[in-house]
Amino acid sequence: MIRPDQTSQFAAETAVRRQAEHLWMGELHAGWRIGAVPNGGYVLAVAGRALREALPHRDPLTVNAFYLAPTVLGPVECRVELLRAGRNTTHAVAGLYQEGELKVQVTAAYTDLEQQQGPTWSATARPVYPGWDECAPSGDSKLEFRQRVDVRLVGGTEVFHGGAPSGRGEFRGWVRHADGAEPDVISLLMFADAFPPPVFDVVGLVNWVPTVELTVQVRAHPAPGPLQARLFSRHLTQGVIEEDGEYWDSEGRLVAISRQTAKVRLPRP
Amino acid sequence: MIRPDQTSQFAAETAVRRQAEHLWMGELHAGWRIGAVPNGGYVLAVAGRALREALPHRDPLTVNAFYLAPTVLGPVECRVELLRAGRNTTHAVAGLYQEGELKVQVTAAYTDLEQQQGPTWSATARPVYPGWDECAPSGDSKLEFRQRVDVRLVGGTEVFHGGAPSGRGEFRGWVRHADGAEPDVISLLMFADAFPPPVFDVVGLVNWVPTVELTVQVRAHPAPGPLQARLFSRHLTQGVIEEDGEYWDSEGRLVAISRQTAKVRLPRP
Repeated sequence: MIRPDQTSQFAAETAVRRQAEHLWMGELHAGWRIGAVPNGGYVLAVAGRALREALPHRDPLTVNAFYLAPTVLGPVECRVELLRAGRNTTHAVAGLYQEGELKVQVTAAYTDLEQQQGPTWSATARPVYPGWDECAPSGDSKLEFRQRVDVRLVGGTEVFHGGAPSGRGEFRGWVRHADGAEPDVISLLMFADAFPPPVFDVVGLVNWVPTVELTVQVRAHPAPGPLQARLFSRHLTQGVIEEDGEYWDSEGRLVAISRQTAKVRLPRP
Repeated sequence: MIRPDQTSQFAAETAVRRQAEHLWMGELHAGWRIGAVPNGGYVLAVAGRALREALPHRDPLTVNAFYLAPTVLGPVECRVELLRAGRNTTHAVAGLYQEGELKVQVTAAYTDLEQQQGPTWSATARPVYPGWDECAPSGDSKLEFRQRVDVRLVGGTEVFHGGAPSGRGEFRGWVRHADGAEPDVISLLMFADAFPPPVFDVVGLVNWVPTVELTVQVRAHPAPGPLQARLFSRHLTQGVIEEDGEYWDSEGRLVAISRQTAKVRLPRP
């Protein structure tokens, strides 16, 4: 666990500094890559930090990202364009550039989550399964990303050990910063892309499942502790699939949902 | 039914014309409003038409819209910004302006859907229920929007006739252009916002469920005939809810999925 006087790895490695009126500089660090490419959720969190610094509202309500080109380690420019500043919500675009090339286009609505008012309801209860402490770190332990994020899955992991996929298209489990830092709203943008692609549970391991587009809807500030997570797919169509995520904090409250569009590239036979 | 030599209402009322290099003009027509405000899916379809005209790829793959301010009837400027043109995909932004004010910010990936290749799978089968011909037009027949879109629901409609909501948070049924025109990929952007909000099936009728943000993922060109549709919500959190849609064509193929974030505004007690 990190001490309260330490900066967490996540906070340090998503930090941005203001360089000009609408320009924020960040850096993509080693530790977060899936293969050669920084994880899309991690990259989105850097944009989320820049928006949090730049906008009058501090909390992401809904954040959408289109991934135009793979990012690389090193400096990243975040050009923030304010679209509309309202009383309850601010809308903005954040363009992530590396060496002048637009890599990720982010559009967001920021708000003050503490001020949200209205009814609360869920169609189904939070799934009940073995807790964080009862699960072992899982997935592909050779992934660099596992240096920063502790992923613990409940079942469905046979496919990582030479077994057959279950065919359900779903992973359930827990996520936490590997250094023990507590989750915040910006880290939810990263955790939304932390689980293995559910298509692994359908067709088996696939080398490359690039994200086309990812939307994270944040519902509340997470309480300290590991996040409970469920990532599932329902429809794969000629290589295009959606991945839907649900995230609950340690007090059992839903704190975010996510959906991404990804492409499934099978090796040529 | 319209004759083959007629222009459909949808085609005529989402038409755009090029005014300058990156500027397309459209007009929001009467017939599509929910209360005083043009339906968000209809407005998105106008942007979708402009992108289809402007980009080298013609089919929406995934389209995201943030609704910043309510639109009104009349002219709408669509400013198209090309983000990246690749071999398989073109990314672009379309900003919809009325009287100089940005109303809707659209980001999109366009492709050629006929060229998609890869595996196809669904976690669950398409729901089976009474067909288009066996269902009556349903929902709030006094809505202007019903002049353009024939919505037929299967069950869950008691709430529109003074009954109690079922609590499931789901509407199932069918949609078709009211003039009998066949669906195309652009109309899927509109049909993705055509069903009543599933929250009606949870808390009862609510006057105002404004869309914050809507993403439509198009999977295939629809075959002629009514579209089968399912719109459901799973999590309402302090007045913020998601609405997930699934759309199948008359041949039973999944042609689109959608997700929107909406706000539920209950009347003050």
